[in-house]
Formats: sequence, structure tokens, C-alpha cells
Amino acid sequence: MSTALLTDKYELTMLSAALHDGTAHRQATFELFARTLPDGRRYGVVAGTGRFAEALASFEFDDEALESVRGFLDPETVAYLARYRFRGDADGYAEGELYFPGSPVLTIRGTFAECIVLETLALSIFNHDSAIASAAARMVSAADGRPIIEMGSRRTHEQAAVAAARAAFIAGFAGSSNLAAQRRYGVPALGTSAHAFTLLHTTPTGPDECAAFRAQVDALGVNTTLLIDTYDITAGVANAVAVAGTRLGGVRIDSGDLGVLARQVRSQLDDLGARHTRIVVSGDLDEFAIAALRAEPVDTYGVGTSVVTGSGAPTAQMVYKLVEVDGMPVEKRSTHKHSHGGHKQAMRLARPTGTVVEEVVYPAGRPPAVAEETRTLTVPLIRGGRPVADVDIADARARVASGLKSLPWDGLKLSRGEPAIPTRMVAAVEHTEEAPRQPRR
Amino acid sequence: MSTALLTDKYELTMLSAALHDGTAHRQATFELFARTLPDGRRYGVVAGTGRFAEALASFEFDDEALESVRGFLDPETVAYLARYRFRGDADGYAEGELYFPGSPVLTIRGTFAECIVLETLALSIFNHDSAIASAAARMVSAADGRPIIEMGSRRTHEQAAVAAARAAFIAGFAGSSNLAAQRRYGVPALGTSAHAFTLLHTTPTGPDECAAFRAQVDALGVNTTLLIDTYDITAGVANAVAVAGTRLGGVRIDSGDLGVLARQVRSQLDDLGARHTRIVVSGDLDEFAIAALRAEPVDTYGVGTSVVTGSGAPTAQMVYKLVEVDGMPVEKRSTHKHSHGGHKQAMRLARPTGTVVEEVVYPAGRPPAVAEETRTLTVPLIRGGRPVADVDIADARARVASGLKSLPWDGLKLSRGEPAIPTRMVAAVEHTEEAPRQPRR
Repeated sequence: MSTALLTDKYELTMLSAALHDGTAHRQATFELFARTLPDGRRYGVVAGTGRFAEALASFEFDDEALESVRGFLDPETVAYLARYRFRGDADGYAEGELYFPGSPVLTIRGTFAECIVLETLALSIFNHDSAIASAAARMVSAADGRPIIEMGSRRTHEQAAVAAARAAFIAGFAGSSNLAAQRRYGVPALGTSAHAFTLLHTTPTGPDECAAFRAQVDALGVNTTLLIDTYDITAGVANAVAVAGTRLGGVRIDSGDLGVLARQVRSQLDDLGARHTRIVVSGDLDEFAIAALRAEPVDTYGVGTSVVTGSGAPTAQMVYKLVEVDGMPVEKRSTHKHSHGGHKQAMRLARPTGTVVEEVVYPAGRPPAVAEETRTLTVPLIRGGRPVADVDIADARARVASGLKSLPWDGLKLSRGEPAIPTRMVAAVEHTEEAPRQPRR
Repeated sequence: MSTALLTDKYELTMLSAALHDGTAHRQATFELFARTLPDGRRYGVVAGTGRFAEALASFEFDDEALESVRGFLDPETVAYLARYRFRGDADGYAEGELYFPGSPVLTIRGTFAECIVLETLALSIFNHDSAIASAAARMVSAADGRPIIEMGSRRTHEQAAVAAARAAFIAGFAGSSNLAAQRRYGVPALGTSAHAFTLLHTTPTGPDECAAFRAQVDALGVNTTLLIDTYDITAGVANAVAVAGTRLGGVRIDSGDLGVLARQVRSQLDDLGARHTRIVVSGDLDEFAIAALRAEPVDTYGVGTSVVTGSGAPTAQMVYKLVEVDGMPVEKRSTHKHSHGGHKQAMRLARPTGTVVEEVVYPAGRPPAVAEETRTLTVPLIRGGRPVADVDIADARARVASGLKSLPWDGLKLSRGEPAIPTRMVAAVEHTEEAPRQPRR
């Protein structure tokens, strides 16, 4: 399906005006970056790189798309769009890299015409996916090694849900409830059961939780996870073990004070001999609630709303700015927003232990001399319109894990604070300038 | 494209277990509703009804979908899914109706098997679209008749963006920047231009704002809207009128103190004789910022991030609950969450002036006798699997407008408060009970 209309109208009217006066063919560099992290966050996680490469491959104005734009565009512009394929280059952070304010997450180079029409598509993908991955990584770090299942599909747009499952998996979630995410991206599909299934087994003489548990165990085996809080949790645990035996895979608690209930259920399971039955908890969990349950006998977390909505930051607020035209750095001047002209690259400096200390953004091809260990962050993603980068999500997932390990200890704190490391912008004109810091509030 | 995999895995494993013990064929009623409104909101706007009907028509397990589920389902369940088409009924609120805590926004009836698999798809659509429409309606009411352009596509998932544009239009926005929303739903596509276009006209001797304005006016005509804040706003206004003349359609201000700048720009335009040139403002506007600009000479608002993210409430938090099995009301008992068993309908009571006073939710087919004017809210949406309702978005838009007019004056306040009207739940067993009120915080 063509992605060409996932675009703001003004990109095409600007294209029309630029074709009209010939400026459309100037060589342009656009940069996608975040001026700040979401309020109080200490790092962000780049996600969307793989999906952008995929969407770009379908960015063609087919007959239907051309039909839609013919109503407001001149024939020359329509003819340009009919032939349109992106033939330029893109560089950027590999998927799963951490990012900080000012990090040049994606740089697109080509004619103004071929770059301007990608603005909305690129921003939509990176803003959504990075928001989810950034929130999810905090949850993973709060869970301290215990698996988290993403189960928020129902709380977000049905297609956003698929991308959210992918982004959460990249950030380190164990899997997702979403079947399309398994199909499209290989994200492990996981799940338990719902209250509806227990309620379904109501008979004219009343509820019959045991019948529901028996049906589930018969169909799915004893390693399944039974939902025990439809009626009474103590009775639910007793029924679960009575039906499934002590080799029951897991029980899920979806309501109430999860810490208190987890302790109580663990003790009851142990007393019944079901020592290896896992406890899954869910119900409005976010990174703070996950952290608060760290000392409790919880084996697995199920997280929904908070991860698919970015836990308070549903968009990464990245922007797509023209930074260079025909080799000349350009930038907007009328506000205090910092946007630094010129084509840039980035590297991250680290201590010999691997702990990172600074993000350095410099004019492309001119890295400053530094004493620390350095790693170049900017890698080739697209050359002449073709993807050249690794977009394997397992690799992206490994990058997040190693990125989190590389942060200074403060960077993993859930409390509000400054970015974990500062970003230094090396200006083209030989002086250095501090990047915008996230304001303290 | 099939929507069948936009589903949580557990729906299909529950289906498998229910097919196994025969309960899958019991007659079930599921209800989709919100227990509360988002924190402090006074009303919600139902959106998604039309999109749900559309998505349901594509809910078929094609070869690709069957291939994906074969890995974890038994052959009988796979065979059931291969034949699956929803043949049941749905009733609910027409798209664009206001809703309150406990309003039965959607009721789906059929076998357990055919209803359970729709849980995620229905919730994803209603939770997303209603969140956007609910936030957008507050902005429309704050704008007090002045048009608002939705321009937030870049700040949300690329497909969510299309649905968001549709939902915002239903809520009363003038149109959207999103071209796919125009194509799919007829939402008027609107737009101005970006800083990149002005920056593109940089020459070796420096910026040339006039060249950019000239190109835009030449290509798009004098009724276009010029973006005047790339360099210096006063110079920008002077350049705009110098290039386009006093019949210039509009100017856009995208940064700075929009109230101060709007006054200054209005006065400068008037002095230059451009008395009919409109002022468009944009830049992190939400309902509060829109209201704060009410006294200023602003003609049009452009709203992005806040509307596509539901202005602090990115999901409507609706749930999908089994409320009746083979004619028996059922409900979860283990928590204080109120969910009322049984198949229900709703009506809204009003004073003779049209101002609404109460939402009444009652056992299906048994409306209580009341003294006030009443309007039945529950309408047939699907019969035997086929859509039977009006899903015209212009009608939905008219419903939002008339719903907002019907609210008591307090209901339109932007401040945090209780739902504008109370919901009364009429129990099947002849006693009445109050619906959960939104907690004061």
C-alpha cells in the first residue's frame, strides 16, 4: 500500500512553488532531531529506523494518490510526483541507539524536492516509535530482569499498536499480545486469558470458575496462566491448583494492591505445593509501579496503557529541519529555539570502563580530536534511495540493552532530571557552543 | 487488507478453549464503555463508530492470517477462524454523540466465539478516536467559532494520524493537513508553508525571504498564507505585503508570544492596508492556549501535538466487558470496579429548553418512566453482520455541535470538574444505583 499520502498538504504546495522557481532542484540536507527529551527524562531510545526504510520503499504516488493531489496541484508538480522515487541518501543513528537533545537521529540528503515530501512520514514514524521505546526502556530497567509483556494494543490506534509492540520489544520487553506484530516483525506473541472467559462459564446456578480453568488447561495445557481474580482471589488460587495441579504454569492478578496480593498468592501457592507456578501481575502498571513491586514475588509484568502512550510522553517531539542548501548552512533565526545549521554527524565519548560521558555533534566529516574512547553514532542508512543498513530488530534490541548498560548510574534513575550526558555541538566555524539542556523544573 | 490480526493472542486461545468445551457457542453480550472520563473532563465524544464498521468488514482470516495462527492453535480453532465472519448484531451511540461514565457506547451480541475475537479491534478504534475527538471538541469550544486546522500528523503514528484528522474534523475542526484523511474520509486538506521553504531561498549573499514569498504567491496565488517568522516578524510582514499586495490571504506566526505578536502583526497589516489578511497562529497550542487567545486578533488556529495526543489523555480508557451469557447477567466481583451486568440501552433526559440533565442506562427494552424530554441514545449499528447505521462524518460532526449546545453551561468549562451530567444506572432488579462518578482530585 502506498505511503505517499501520509503527508501534509503543505509539503506538496511548497514543492509546487519550488518547482516553479527552480529551487526544488537545489541540494538539501534535512535533519531529524529532538530539541529536548520529554520532561525530566534522562535518555531517549531511537526507534522507527527499520519502519522508515520499509515505508520509504512504498512512498510512490500511485494512480489513486495522483488522483487526490490533482485537485490542488499544477500539472508539472503532478508529473514530478508521478515519477517520484527517493534517490538520495540518509544517515542516522542505528535503531536502538540512545539519543539526547540535539542528536542528529536522521539526516536526509537529496534535492529539496525529494526530501521535503518525506517530512511527515519520517516524523510520524520516529516520533511515535521513539516515544514508545523510550518509555518501554525505563520499564525494562525498572523490572530489573523480570520479563514484561506488552498488552496495550487496545488502548491505542490499531496500527499504532503493531508499531508499539515492535518498539517495546526493541526496548527489551519479552513480547506482546499483538498478533500482527508477530506476523510482521517476529515479536513473540504472548497472552493469558480474560475475565470474560471465566464469566462465560456461568451456569443458571451461578459462577463456575473451575469449569473455566478446566477448559483452559484442557485446551492449552498445564503450563498456561490462569486469571484468578474474577471472583475471590483466595478461592481462585485454590481452584486453579485443584484443577491444574502443582505444575500449573502461572496465575495472573489484574486488580487490587498487586504487592499485597502477590505476597499472599505466593504464600498460598507455596503452601499448596505449587512452588514453581509463576505470578503475572497487570493493571495500570507503569515504570514507577513496576519499580515499586521489585521486592515482591512477581515473576512477570503485563503492561498496557502506559507503554503504548509513552508513559506521559506520547510523542518524542522530534522535528525535521532544513540545515543546508547547496552547501550553505541555514537556520531559522526569529526565536530562541536552537537549531544548528549544516550537515552534522555525531559520536559518543566513553570512559575506558565503557560508561559514556558526552555526545559530540560535529560538522560532517570533521570529528574533533578527543582523549576519550569514541564511537561514531552516525551510520549510512540509505544510499541512492536504497536501504544499506542492518534493520534487524534483534540487533536493535541488543543495542538498547548495551546502551542502558553504558549509562552513568544517574541516567537510569526514574526520577526527573537532566539528560544523562551532555551534548556538545561543535560549530563549523571553529568555536564550540553548548547544546540546549533540558530545563530543570 | 485483513484486520483479523489486529487482535490479542489471548482472544484466540480463549476461543480455542471455549470451542473445546462447547461454551464458544453460548449467546453473549459484550459492552464497550468508559468507567470514567479522563481526569477532570466533563464530557467525552464518541468517535470510531464508522471506522469500526469499516474494519469489521475486513475482519477475515485470510491465508496469511491463518498461517500465523496455525503455530499456536489446534486445527478445529483454525478451521473455525477460516470460516469466521461476524454475523451478530451491534447497537450503540451514533458517532459524534457525547458520552459519560457508564454510557454503553457499543453493545455487541452474538456467540461468545464471534464476539470475543473483536475485543482488541473495537477497543483500539474507539479508544483512539474518542480520545482525539474528546480533546478536539474542547478546543473547538474554546476557539468560539474561529476555525482550527489539525496539523499534528507528524507527532503521531502515520496511520493514527489519518484517524486523528477524521476524529478532529468530526469534533468541529475546519480540516487537516493530512492528505490521506482527505482521500479516505473527505476531510478538507489545508495548509500553509514551512520555514524550510523560506530557508531554501538562501543565496550566497544571505537569506532572501522575498524570493520565497514571491515563489509561493506565483505558484499558489495571492490568497495563500505566508509564514512570516523565519527571520524577523516585522520585516516578514513588510516583505509579505510588498510581494503579495494588500489582498494577501493570510500570514502565519509559529513562534513567540502569539498574543503579543498577533496584535503587533494585525496593527502592522492594517497600517499597510492589508485589512483583510488573516492571521493564522500555531505552535504548541492546546485548548487552554486557544482560550487565552480569544481576545486577540487571531483568525485561525493551527493545532498539532495536543490534539493528536488527546491533550493529556491519549486513550479514552474504554473497556469491553462480557455482560450477559445465555440471558444471564454476569459481572466480575473481586474489585470495586463497577461493571453492571446485563444487556443495556441508554437515553438522555433534557429540560424543555434542550439542556440535558441526566444520562439513564437501563435494561434493554425496559426504559423507566420519566417526566423529562427523552432521547434514545442506543441505535442499531449492525444486524446479522451488516452495517445498518448512518456513518456519514458530516452527520457525526453535526451531532457533536448539537451535543455541545445541549450541555449545561458548566459542562463547557475547561477547568477540571465532574461529568456535566450524572449517569443513572437502572438495575434489572428494580432498585436504582448511582453510576461511578469521576473522583474529585
